[in-house]
Amino acid sequence: MATNVPLSDFLATAVDAAKKAGEVIRKGFYQTKNVEHKGQVDLVTETDKACEELVFNHLKQYYPDHKFIGEETTALYGATELTDDPTWIVDPLDGTTNFVHGFPFVCVSIGLTIRKVPTVGVVYNPIMDELFTGVRGQGAFLNGKPIQVSSKDELVNCLLATETGTQRDKATVDATTNRINSLLFKVRSVRMSGSCAMNLCGIACGRLDLMYEIGYGGAWDVAAGIVIVEEAGGRVFDPSGKDFDITVTRVAASNPLIKDSFTEVFQQSE
Amino acid sequence: MATNVPLSDFLATAVDAAKKAGEVIRKGFYQTKNVEHKGQVDLVTETDKACEELVFNHLKQYYPDHKFIGEETTALYGATELTDDPTWIVDPLDGTTNFVHGFPFVCVSIGLTIRKVPTVGVVYNPIMDELFTGVRGQGAFLNGKPIQVSSKDELVNCLLATETGTQRDKATVDATTNRINSLLFKVRSVRMSGSCAMNLCGIACGRLDLMYEIGYGGAWDVAAGIVIVEEAGGRVFDPSGKDFDITVTRVAASNPLIKDSFTEVFQQSE
Repeated sequence: MATNVPLSDFLATAVDAAKKAGEVIRKGFYQTKNVEHKGQVDLVTETDKACEELVFNHLKQYYPDHKFIGEETTALYGATELTDDPTWIVDPLDGTTNFVHGFPFVCVSIGLTIRKVPTVGVVYNPIMDELFTGVRGQGAFLNGKPIQVSSKDELVNCLLATETGTQRDKATVDATTNRINSLLFKVRSVRMSGSCAMNLCGIACGRLDLMYEIGYGGAWDVAAGIVIVEEAGGRVFDPSGKDFDITVTRVAASNPLIKDSFTEVFQQSE
Repeated sequence: MATNVPLSDFLATAVDAAKKAGEVIRKGFYQTKNVEHKGQVDLVTETDKACEELVFNHLKQYYPDHKFIGEETTALYGATELTDDPTWIVDPLDGTTNFVHGFPFVCVSIGLTIRKVPTVGVVYNPIMDELFTGVRGQGAFLNGKPIQVSSKDELVNCLLATETGTQRDKATVDATTNRINSLLFKVRSVRMSGSCAMNLCGIACGRLDLMYEIGYGGAWDVAAGIVIVEEAGGRVFDPSGKDFDITVTRVAASNPLIKDSFTEVFQQSE
């Protein structure tokens, strides 16, 4: 199925869908300040749903036989199993807290897996107008220009991105800050911007050198970013150094030169 | 001296200077990837110096009798005492780590104190093209549109910004992560973007609800931001809740509704 369609066609369709969803996100982004708190929550839900519907409908027009996994539909109908079929994995609005607050790291993330391999990735931040794209074997791009990961090979020169997650039980929070404490002695500095997909793209374009996130939402947060990082010359892996497993919500990414040093200090921080 | 000049003239001159410096920052920002590490350090130093010279020269043309305090000149000649004279306090490039890495939170910060009171503030991020301005008694603006602080009155709904600083001794790092640990149980989430001036502007436009920073560079990091926050209806204070003291490198900012709850939990986190 779909093997006759060139990957660049999938990409073009995904970019169109991302741009459309981006318009909806941008509109909502500048409205959140003008609605009451309860209304803000509704606006997130509405924007999330509207974007997912819009993206799915757009893609289904072209690829009616493909499978679809989205954050919103999964929340409604439970997990959808990833098969070998071409499957679009979509986060219609990554960075919902940022969206509510008007903090500019928000994006739509659209990934396509074929035989379970992430093959096409599009991450679009409509506020900063940054379109990250990647196609397996065909490179990664930011607004059409080729990007590549950084060449840092010493932790002390590395900028690390992570997030504090949403769990607020004592064990999780302690583990989160203990890890940051250990890593602060090794790296140059830490950034937290509130979007897993944007952090992966940050690795891809070299503005970040290291990223990890534990307990993120689901495959939709990383499906597109993985292709973009790998096509930019980077590595995506479990923070422990093991292979990345899309069914476990633990992800790390870096350039290939710094990966081993990073996983070593990460293990010590656990 | 200078009392005959309307404050709006000071603002216009400062905006012109910030735009000019912004051009230099933007140019360097997209070059850092193409130079070796040693070259990157030089590029920061050169950009920092070039921007400070450019801003000071521009302001001196109009206000030759004013005093000037800048990060670069202070680094060279030692601290300059703040007097009652109109004094321009300039950070030519806030977010130097971001600048080196290509992370988009970088800005030039230009503040004017008159009788030691921060009176005019301009913070310009040339990458995101965000120009924050404030004039004592005349409001705060983002790209010409009026801004105001958020109206959050419960910590659990608040987005908090802080930084890990540059000190890496055990006592400082432990204090930093212990504070974040305590606060994570109280607030919605934490952001670290690497620019003190941009964090203050984030409070002013309501995309952040709380910010604190301990051990930042100096008065040049906050002189402009203070005016912008206060004119947007916010408060600038010592994180302990005491009055802000420009000679001590501790700052916090928030909207007036949440200030007391914040300083209370902050004290518990110390």
